[in-house]
Amino acid sequence: MGLEHVLNAGSVAVVGASRNETKRGYQAIKILLDEKFDGKIYPVNPREESVLGLPCYAKVSDIEDPVEMALITTPAATIPAILEDCGKKGVAGAVIIAGGFGELGTEGKRLEREMVETAQKYHIRLIGPNTSGMINLKRHLNVVGLRDVPQGSIALLTQSGNMALTLITEAMIKTRMGFSYYVGVGNEADIRFHEYLKFFTDDPETRAILMYVEGLRNGRAFLQQAYQTTRVKPVVLLKSGRSATGRKSAGSHTGALAGMSEVARTAFQRAGIVVIENSDELLPAAESLANLPPIKNNNVVILADGGGHATIAADELTDLKLKLPELSKKTQEKLKKILPAAASVRNPIDVAGGGDANPGIFADCAEIILHDHEVGSLLMVGLFGGYSIRFAESLQFVEEDAAHRLGKLVRKTEKPIVVHSLYNFAKPHALELLRYYKIPVQDSLEIACKCIGVLAEYGGYLRGYRAKAKFTFTKGEKAKARGREIFAQARKEGRRALLEPEAKELLSLHGQVVCVDCLATSAEQAVQLAAGIEGEVVMKIVSQDILHKSDAGGVKLGLEKPEDIRRAFDEIMSNAKKFDPQARVKGILVSPMAAEGQEVIVGTKIDDQFGPIIMFGIGGVMVEVLKDVAFRVLPISARSARRMIDEIKSAVLLNGFRGRPPVDKKAIQHLLLAVSEIIGSYPDIQEMDLNPVIVYEQGINVVDARIILTPEGQSRW
Amino acid sequence: MGLEHVLNAGSVAVVGASRNETKRGYQAIKILLDEKFDGKIYPVNPREESVLGLPCYAKVSDIEDPVEMALITTPAATIPAILEDCGKKGVAGAVIIAGGFGELGTEGKRLEREMVETAQKYHIRLIGPNTSGMINLKRHLNVVGLRDVPQGSIALLTQSGNMALTLITEAMIKTRMGFSYYVGVGNEADIRFHEYLKFFTDDPETRAILMYVEGLRNGRAFLQQAYQTTRVKPVVLLKSGRSATGRKSAGSHTGALAGMSEVARTAFQRAGIVVIENSDELLPAAESLANLPPIKNNNVVILADGGGHATIAADELTDLKLKLPELSKKTQEKLKKILPAAASVRNPIDVAGGGDANPGIFADCAEIILHDHEVGSLLMVGLFGGYSIRFAESLQFVEEDAAHRLGKLVRKTEKPIVVHSLYNFAKPHALELLRYYKIPVQDSLEIACKCIGVLAEYGGYLRGYRAKAKFTFTKGEKAKARGREIFAQARKEGRRALLEPEAKELLSLHGQVVCVDCLATSAEQAVQLAAGIEGEVVMKIVSQDILHKSDAGGVKLGLEKPEDIRRAFDEIMSNAKKFDPQARVKGILVSPMAAEGQEVIVGTKIDDQFGPIIMFGIGGVMVEVLKDVAFRVLPISARSARRMIDEIKSAVLLNGFRGRPPVDKKAIQHLLLAVSEIIGSYPDIQEMDLNPVIVYEQGINVVDARIILTPEGQSRW
Repeated sequence: MGLEHVLNAGSVAVVGASRNETKRGYQAIKILLDEKFDGKIYPVNPREESVLGLPCYAKVSDIEDPVEMALITTPAATIPAILEDCGKKGVAGAVIIAGGFGELGTEGKRLEREMVETAQKYHIRLIGPNTSGMINLKRHLNVVGLRDVPQGSIALLTQSGNMALTLITEAMIKTRMGFSYYVGVGNEADIRFHEYLKFFTDDPETRAILMYVEGLRNGRAFLQQAYQTTRVKPVVLLKSGRSATGRKSAGSHTGALAGMSEVARTAFQRAGIVVIENSDELLPAAESLANLPPIKNNNVVILADGGGHATIAADELTDLKLKLPELSKKTQEKLKKILPAAASVRNPIDVAGGGDANPGIFADCAEIILHDHEVGSLLMVGLFGGYSIRFAESLQFVEEDAAHRLGKLVRKTEKPIVVHSLYNFAKPHALELLRYYKIPVQDSLEIACKCIGVLAEYGGYLRGYRAKAKFTFTKGEKAKARGREIFAQARKEGRRALLEPEAKELLSLHGQVVCVDCLATSAEQAVQLAAGIEGEVVMKIVSQDILHKSDAGGVKLGLEKPEDIRRAFDEIMSNAKKFDPQARVKGILVSPMAAEGQEVIVGTKIDDQFGPIIMFGIGGVMVEVLKDVAFRVLPISARSARRMIDEIKSAVLLNGFRGRPPVDKKAIQHLLLAVSEIIGSYPDIQEMDLNPVIVYEQGINVVDARIILTPEGQSRW
Repeated sequence: MGLEHVLNAGSVAVVGASRNETKRGYQAIKILLDEKFDGKIYPVNPREESVLGLPCYAKVSDIEDPVEMALITTPAATIPAILEDCGKKGVAGAVIIAGGFGELGTEGKRLEREMVETAQKYHIRLIGPNTSGMINLKRHLNVVGLRDVPQGSIALLTQSGNMALTLITEAMIKTRMGFSYYVGVGNEADIRFHEYLKFFTDDPETRAILMYVEGLRNGRAFLQQAYQTTRVKPVVLLKSGRSATGRKSAGSHTGALAGMSEVARTAFQRAGIVVIENSDELLPAAESLANLPPIKNNNVVILADGGGHATIAADELTDLKLKLPELSKKTQEKLKKILPAAASVRNPIDVAGGGDANPGIFADCAEIILHDHEVGSLLMVGLFGGYSIRFAESLQFVEEDAAHRLGKLVRKTEKPIVVHSLYNFAKPHALELLRYYKIPVQDSLEIACKCIGVLAEYGGYLRGYRAKAKFTFTKGEKAKARGREIFAQARKEGRRALLEPEAKELLSLHGQVVCVDCLATSAEQAVQLAAGIEGEVVMKIVSQDILHKSDAGGVKLGLEKPEDIRRAFDEIMSNAKKFDPQARVKGILVSPMAAEGQEVIVGTKIDDQFGPIIMFGIGGVMVEVLKDVAFRVLPISARSARRMIDEIKSAVLLNGFRGRPPVDKKAIQHLLLAVSEIIGSYPDIQEMDLNPVIVYEQGINVVDARIILTPEGQSRW
């Protein structure tokens, strides 16, 4: 670790210090001085005597006093040598601004490796490279070159300098919120997202963590940390790059289906992270979560003046899965007493002009509403703050009083209020007061609704929290000696895949029922084997060079008569030859026809960011056409496996659709857990595709299985 | 019509004129005077001598000069008498502010009817009641009581006063746009949405129409007008009330599936209306469409400075179905020449800091990009307008020059540019210049993308425009004498549904292949009938009291042996008795088993707003679980029918999925058209449910048909 030496450094050497005002080496020192950094500053530049009145050193190791952190503003090629010097001086951390590393291809990657190795040799932790830098607002340690960043309780962690600028600008203009830290993670060459997350989890100044992510270098470590962090404080995240998804097509079914962003979103949400899709909602979501108590139940009341806003808010909150229940008769009676006759006291509450002469009525209503124990939170929409503008100036004092009362009400009831006001633009004092009491005020109805939405989402997560699977594999002690032999044999033969019987044997070793097959190497042997099987049989080619057997004409179904079996054997063999004259053929599997049942598919692949993931879906159209599948990062718990089964849209097909008996979900759950265990036990597996798997009222049968190996010598994750 | 006498009145009587500053009867006159209405104003109030220096009349008929329009601010109960008086005076239009009419139940509805009848007697057209009023900006005819509404080219038509206030406020703060008219439609007691739409279509001041709709009183007339309007000018619409959908559950399958908002959205979009879901996007969409040429192709280029904004914009534009193709080699070369080495010249274009010293580079790039004939439009994201704020003050003049060049470029190339700038809040002059050139500037990335999205959507609509079906039914001349007899018989028997054989006969009359069935009234007759059918048969109960035959145990499949048929007959009869002892049973249908094929469902129902609609989907899970259905307002054209078939998500199942032959889409198309014709020919039909229909490689077979009649004497739409 040691992140505190970088993020909380008491002394900074600015390497590349400059007297040129347009240079970062000047701006950084200027801001550190202007903003009164409470530590020491040491300009470093062999060609300068002094910068901004501070004596300049030729190199870091020339500085007499200890130096905790170095801000390095010089070009990429100079960095390794500078780090050597820093290392000798005992510097603990460095911020590397320069681009030109891993993002620029082979040569850049080499330079990045050299830089990291040098840093590791001296135990220097690095932010960046290719970053805008970092700010510790409390210590006024600002090496970004951006002024007047407001101080507060949100830790901002981003992979884009201009998104940081956007969010900081927004915070300044639209909120009373500010930041505890800002970190531009850059290339994540050394310090990774999960380490920053850990640091902010432990930081007492930080009440919420706000992240913009384009890609993670270590998704699994990040998730593991996120599970810890979100129990303690909220994390809000926007992951961009949805549209790149389509391009990442992979060979197998699972690969083709595993849309990256879908995997990421599910994984993040399961770890309690609030995932945001619209960048306009990012800061308001963080503001709400940092300031307000999470909502204890999903019942929201809308308080409005007139129709339109209330209708739109009701639509939006419903889309966000919040409930708008009618208020209890008792509460309705109380409201009726203070509201005009035309008012509606159900939900949305419409004061129907009742605020025109007395906007204090909103506080009166809010008190009645939030004291109803069935209500979880209140959304006020409309003109509040602007009654003084629209009707009579003197109303401003009434609005301000109402704002004080609303603020205290939130503190007392611990139920959040969010306010939409179309007069927000005019910055009336009443709305500033609401913000003082930590009530978010939005001029967008949809964003106000989203604020309620994230408070409910996080509240729900905290309520539903239970111990989750650790994101490391427990390699079971039931030694998998035979399993390892299977892989060893495949490796020995230089294969990149297990043969179907091998894959099935592996599943069988792990307690799964597979279709019993026998290998025939001649037509006559096939006939003999079929004679021992009751009813019709299936015949399938076995070749390491033919992964998609049907495509190669390598599968024949519903055979019973000896002459049909003989002909099928010959046809499969000749099809295989046509498909690939070089194909190495082991023989032909003869299997009983699986009884009819519900077809499902289970697959695994290696995700770039999260390592092994598992996919479950219902076979045929549901998976292939409608992409109706559930994903999880492996390993999974029993509870997770069960949830996967229930969360696909077509899950109803498993529950006894159209009078059919329900299928054996327990068996599917066991299969998913067995796959999780197998993936954990054999790091050789790159992809697994169990398709089809037939589930019955009782039991399950893996009819076909395909396992692809990792490239020899390449680590999986 | 005669809307011009209301919306363009040259003289206004203000009934309920008042000296009390808090009254609408004072405020309206004050604003008309202050804003210099270019017509005559006549205060009317028997208790006043004069108001605001104008002589006051006791009643409208006392006014000597002609009066074109009356603004009536008095309570509901007074309105009919006032309209009588207005009628005698020859007033052509009236705006009724008061609430307390149709929205308040029976008594209010009676009063509303009385009011409308009085108005019709004298040919007075009414806006409202229950409205905030209307404004004609050009004539300064403002009876709303809202000041400083900016004048411009957007006609604003809403069903919510506070949404109008929101949109007008937004226009004032965020744009250089304004309004040609504002109309609060209120209860639509007389003038309906489609009439306003027609008026604005013909109005030369109006370049775009912006609507907020909660519900339409005449959806069909509105659609018919919309088809005309959108060919001439863009219409942007937000329809709220999505969340009420779930509640409107109807008995039959079609009913249960026809989510109102889904029907409305599809119908609006097909009429060329740009449908908006997020209220924040409403004004920006209208601004873009009023100001900029529609996009001629879907190829957009993103021009950015750095990563984050570009990535988010690329995601968002992709979601909006826009394309981000790589630029041609030639264009890339030109860009390379002017950009720094680190820049990316594919798409998104990243100037990579190239604007820090010279923001003019954005205009240089834009010129190169938009002159590439493959590019349809340009989205600039990032800091433009703020380089002077972020780097050096003197850059403001460079930015202003670039703004002029960008503005002229749009005019010259007729390709739209939309700009996102995080410095929009600071209101730099360069951004004001862009607005002067009608380039929208947004501080939200997502909204900037949406501006491009709506320009592309409307452009695509105009390109794809072809003659659409008229929204009136052409009652074919092939007299449907036998068809009418079937309905007459059912009515005579007091039935609310056709029997299955009747429904099938009707389809058959209209050229559709239906399953051939025979009615058996005894077990022996059933056996005889079955003997004449090859293969297995199906037996189904025929009773006007049993609509859902399977639920009542009224269907038996796969029967062949006489004893099985006899037993089935008895069982069905006894099940029917158990289900409903009073059920009137006509007998049991004996039909051949339909050959296996692809099951589809066709249904119709009456939508509250749009009248008859048709639904198509693939039978079983696709419809019942995944709600994968296509809707259209009837009647439909052949092209529409074809599109319905292709637009369901599971359409791939019809195209020869997994090696099966493709089904006969032509036959489905014919069936949809026949249903359209039948619905148009027999106004007795409330709902039709053809389920299942089996489609084959060649041909189609309607296996079961259910037709529900409208309540006797009730008009259908």
